[in-house]
Amino acid sequence: MMTNSDIKLIRSLREKKFRDELGLFVVEGEKMVQEALDSSYEVVRLFRKNEIGEEAMSRISMLNTPSPALAVVRIPESETPNTIGDGLYLALDSVRDPGNLGTIVRLADWFGVEGIFASPDTVELYNPKTIQSTMGAVFRKKVTYCNLEDLCRRFSEAGRPVYGTFMDGDSIYSSDLKQNALVVMGNEARGISPAVSSLVTARIHIPSFAGGPTAESLNVAVAAAVTVSEFRRRTI
Amino acid sequence: MMTNSDIKLIRSLREKKFRDELGLFVVEGEKMVQEALDSSYEVVRLFRKNEIGEEAMSRISMLNTPSPALAVVRIPESETPNTIGDGLYLALDSVRDPGNLGTIVRLADWFGVEGIFASPDTVELYNPKTIQSTMGAVFRKKVTYCNLEDLCRRFSEAGRPVYGTFMDGDSIYSSDLKQNALVVMGNEARGISPAVSSLVTARIHIPSFAGGPTAESLNVAVAAAVTVSEFRRRTI
Repeated sequence: MMTNSDIKLIRSLREKKFRDELGLFVVEGEKMVQEALDSSYEVVRLFRKNEIGEEAMSRISMLNTPSPALAVVRIPESETPNTIGDGLYLALDSVRDPGNLGTIVRLADWFGVEGIFASPDTVELYNPKTIQSTMGAVFRKKVTYCNLEDLCRRFSEAGRPVYGTFMDGDSIYSSDLKQNALVVMGNEARGISPAVSSLVTARIHIPSFAGGPTAESLNVAVAAAVTVSEFRRRTI
Repeated sequence: MMTNSDIKLIRSLREKKFRDELGLFVVEGEKMVQEALDSSYEVVRLFRKNEIGEEAMSRISMLNTPSPALAVVRIPESETPNTIGDGLYLALDSVRDPGNLGTIVRLADWFGVEGIFASPDTVELYNPKTIQSTMGAVFRKKVTYCNLEDLCRRFSEAGRPVYGTFMDGDSIYSSDLKQNALVVMGNEARGISPAVSSLVTARIHIPSFAGGPTAESLNVAVAAAVTVSEFRRRTI
């Protein structure tokens, strides 16, 4: 059964303010809901179209075509880890587009990235667009919001390189790439902030093959994918 | 000056029906508009916020924050080329998300992909979301809608491989990759269609490093990026 207060609750979770206040977020789609149920996340409410009906589902769904299943999930506690284990980590410096964040979480999962850090001004993980574009990877791959300058220093102090992509960096294809490292990806328009840039210890670059000065940039999720793929290729 | 009929025209171009009928599309943003002006595309109308005012711009802009510039651009004639030159080509088999198509056009530009083909059921190039996510690459990189089966046969008959990504393909990192070739990318949910699959001559695969069976897939634009990057790396 779905009550009017359920509808009100679920619709309110489209806004960050209410997600923060209630500590809840929404996932839609059979696959996503199943991944939530299979994960350590707490599913607070679960609605299925074949139980509540198409019309009721269309009142709570954010999708153009109401999904067969919708779950309300509790946002887990998050804290910056005291120790950072071995592995490749991503740090997102003010990534603002929800789809980009979701796509990065998804590819981080595919390429076995150990963990993802994000600056406090990076788009919120529980934004519905972000959640949907993770395709369920959000339930497997943790995103920790923290001060990236402190994080970069921690990696450096542990003797681990901090990589960042810059126009004047060395070609990623011929750079020495250490697998226990942090890779910083910057904002869609401005790239990596000056404060974080100064803490990058290895400047890398994805070469353009455009044959001219016209192709200006890569989408940040695409740049993250190419970078992480190149790190992983070296392990084979 | 902006008239009411201008507003009506521009707003109508949010719908494919009117873009088809009028042969026009809209671009927004200073950079995008400049790229349109610098290109061979015909800019039919041009509106700047500092000329028409913020309020008028907000009535025609699709963006949350009205852009400083908006142009109405003529859709160029498109035809399938009679001959296919050397180079690496992408074929999109029913890619449905506008952002994915735009991101693929953008990365194709960066990596010097020679041309992009798309099945007739691939999302329309002139969809505003697609256009905006190309970040201007739409004015440099051609997308030709055509029958992909015929296209695959043409490549094969010319002795050029047709690559496609499949779960059971050979690792892209160790496959022989020919630079004069076609690479087929499939639909977001279903992958490459059976008819086109049967015409793929080299099955490749982007390995997962997830260390488990959980990470299920990559976003199609991410997969295209990793694939094209790996082709290009071999040329260095």
